[in-house]
Amino acid sequence: MAAMGMSKNRLEAFSDGVIAIIVTIMVLELKIPHESSWLALAPLIPKLLGYLLSFVIVAIMWVNHHHVMHPVESVDNRLLWANNVMLFWMSLIPFATGYMSEHYLSPEPVAVYGIDMTLCGLSFTCFRLAAGKRYPRSKTSQPLTFKDISSSILYLASIPLAFVSTYVSFAIFAGVALRYLLPKPEKQENPGA
Amino acid sequence: MAAMGMSKNRLEAFSDGVIAIIVTIMVLELKIPHESSWLALAPLIPKLLGYLLSFVIVAIMWVNHHHVMHPVESVDNRLLWANNVMLFWMSLIPFATGYMSEHYLSPEPVAVYGIDMTLCGLSFTCFRLAAGKRYPRSKTSQPLTFKDISSSILYLASIPLAFVSTYVSFAIFAGVALRYLLPKPEKQENPGA
Amino acid sequence: MAAMGMSKNRLEAFSDGVIAIIVTIMVLELKIPHESSWLALAPLIPKLLGYLLSFVIVAIMWVNHHHVMHPVESVDNRLLWANNVMLFWMSLIPFATGYMSEHYLSPEPVAVYGIDMTLCGLSFTCFRLAAGKRYPRSKTSQPLTFKDISSSILYLASIPLAFVSTYVSFAIFAGVALRYLLPKPEKQENPGA
Amino acid sequence: MAAMGMSKNRLEAFSDGVIAIIVTIMVLELKIPHESSWLALAPLIPKLLGYLLSFVIVAIMWVNHHHVMHPVESVDNRLLWANNVMLFWMSLIPFATGYMSEHYLSPEPVAVYGIDMTLCGLSFTCFRLAAGKRYPRSKTSQPLTFKDISSSILYLASIPLAFVSTYVSFAIFAGVALRYLLPKPEKQENPGA
Repeated sequence: MAAMGMSKNRLEAFSDGVIAIIVTIMVLELKIPHESSWLALAPLIPKLLGYLLSFVIVAIMWVNHHHVMHPVESVDNRLLWANNVMLFWMSLIPFATGYMSEHYLSPEPVAVYGIDMTLCGLSFTCFRLAAGKRYPRSKTSQPLTFKDISSSILYLASIPLAFVSTYVSFAIFAGVALRYLLPKPEKQENPGA
Repeated sequence: MAAMGMSKNRLEAFSDGVIAIIVTIMVLELKIPHESSWLALAPLIPKLLGYLLSFVIVAIMWVNHHHVMHPVESVDNRLLWANNVMLFWMSLIPFATGYMSEHYLSPEPVAVYGIDMTLCGLSFTCFRLAAGKRYPRSKTSQPLTFKDISSSILYLASIPLAFVSTYVSFAIFAGVALRYLLPKPEKQENPGA
Repeated sequence: MAAMGMSKNRLEAFSDGVIAIIVTIMVLELKIPHESSWLALAPLIPKLLGYLLSFVIVAIMWVNHHHVMHPVESVDNRLLWANNVMLFWMSLIPFATGYMSEHYLSPEPVAVYGIDMTLCGLSFTCFRLAAGKRYPRSKTSQPLTFKDISSSILYLASIPLAFVSTYVSFAIFAGVALRYLLPKPEKQENPGA
Repeated sequence: MAAMGMSKNRLEAFSDGVIAIIVTIMVLELKIPHESSWLALAPLIPKLLGYLLSFVIVAIMWVNHHHVMHPVESVDNRLLWANNVMLFWMSLIPFATGYMSEHYLSPEPVAVYGIDMTLCGLSFTCFRLAAGKRYPRSKTSQPLTFKDISSSILYLASIPLAFVSTYVSFAIFAGVALRYLLPKPEKQENPGA
């Protein structure tokens, strides 16, 4: 039952499907208020911000998923299950987002979000390693990047720091996302890329 | 982590997935009545009309998304994130639809719908601009169209007008949708198209 | 904004996405019982049967959607919107199924299901007509089939008949589905097919 | 209305969509706790474990679905409906998972899970048989495998055994999944594979 011959297209299509649903069910946490006033919308603001944060993080992971898969031609068992493990942790993002958004001043829910982010980051790194092992000479799927490792460490730090102040953890979540969004601050890493 | 080389197919597949889910989760707002009579269905009529409106708007955006992507061959970072921003605002349509449908006589929920429509319209125009910048000579992806700009202005007007009468805003939402549905009233814009 | 050039692939992918979600959200109506006994599962039996019925109907529509699209190469505005109208009525199947399953002895919910089935059937016929107009010489997309027309008429009859007995309507729903499932009772219609 | 000519791509895309949604809606069972403490998360642990189990099982079925489809070039009616029957039983996994996770010490919910697993296993075997009948000389789609048959028998045994101890059934569910996950304990079956 080895996964040799699994074409990359179907793995991408399945991952795209799961990621698209993850993104969209997060929106279901925005419960419709029973009253029709601007004031009734105020409690939704932290939920909307939490949704925005997770939307951006999932979108970045989707973009990077593509970059890792780009040089891959066929998928072996290791890469397939590294992908599935990553999707598992990503599928918990809606839960973690909803929990954090509802209790954004309490350390435990923010730590839960940090735990899930750490596991998403680590499993993404494993996924990249699995792709790098399969296609070692490919430039885009370098087995380890400084950005990914430091992001995982920052996410890990966000867990205890939530008990200092949840805003420190929020700053980490937002900062890591911005680092991937902003155009190439790590130019020196990829000369000629 | 530049998005060069992102094939257009995967961006389309991901967008299709998100849009398909957006369309379908709007239906979940049609809660099943506890009583089995025609009368019990009456409160669902505004919800059904709201769903119909948003279904048509999302379907139009999906069709136009295709037209903008048609000449595109590969996707750069700008186009990729313009697409993601548009999907973000589109993903709020189920919330805005549900809120408006539940309080269709109150100005605030209708204004919320107008705000989301404005942001969908503007982000769609940015998306078109990003595609036009990448493929400037392509005919179908003209950077700016009169229809898109005027639609955004109409949507913007619907926000304050909801406080005059919500029916004025409904007329704008329906009118803008019809303008895209009816076969070519803007023939003079695209001679020879 | 004419839809010329819309490739059939993207219309199929979008329709597949919507249909896959329709099928799967029907399952959400099977609420988990709070008690753990066989007796607690008894009220779920009509819901499970309703789900089975709608699953089969949606699956048949999906298969026939494929057959209609098979000879199609590119999509024009008429075919595109005929498809969207059909998806709209299909997207109400989860609601109609849930309502009917909860009140399977009451005529109104069963009539609602019959109404949605009639609209699904008619919009499917329009969809087939639109494909037939575009590819008139194609054999598989014959503009009108006896099976489709008679199914729509049977569905239409199920609406008033629900007020005689809901079981008559159930027999119609099941019978129409079986007609499509059983291997070719209409052999004489397609000689040499 | 025979399914000849149904391309394998569309069957795969539809199945991928349904499976992706099945995986993701299971997460919706993880309800967000109203309190923000580690203690409030404790009741979620069995639900998380149940989700993990079903995630792995669905992922294995998805991988094996691919292997069965690999040599298939076009789809006939038998294979198409064998696939749909399998998707039907798979679509009940979120319900069975939620029910079992909420009452993991009660035999009935665990037996319900075992029943659905048995039906998933049997329908997968039928699906494999249908593919094997269509492409009899293909190596990867051997009509019957010892692993699949014994898995179905084990699943069947888990139903009555749930009334002895639910942990015996859990051991069966986990054991069958591990058998598919671990790299090739059945090497002797596929010499030269």
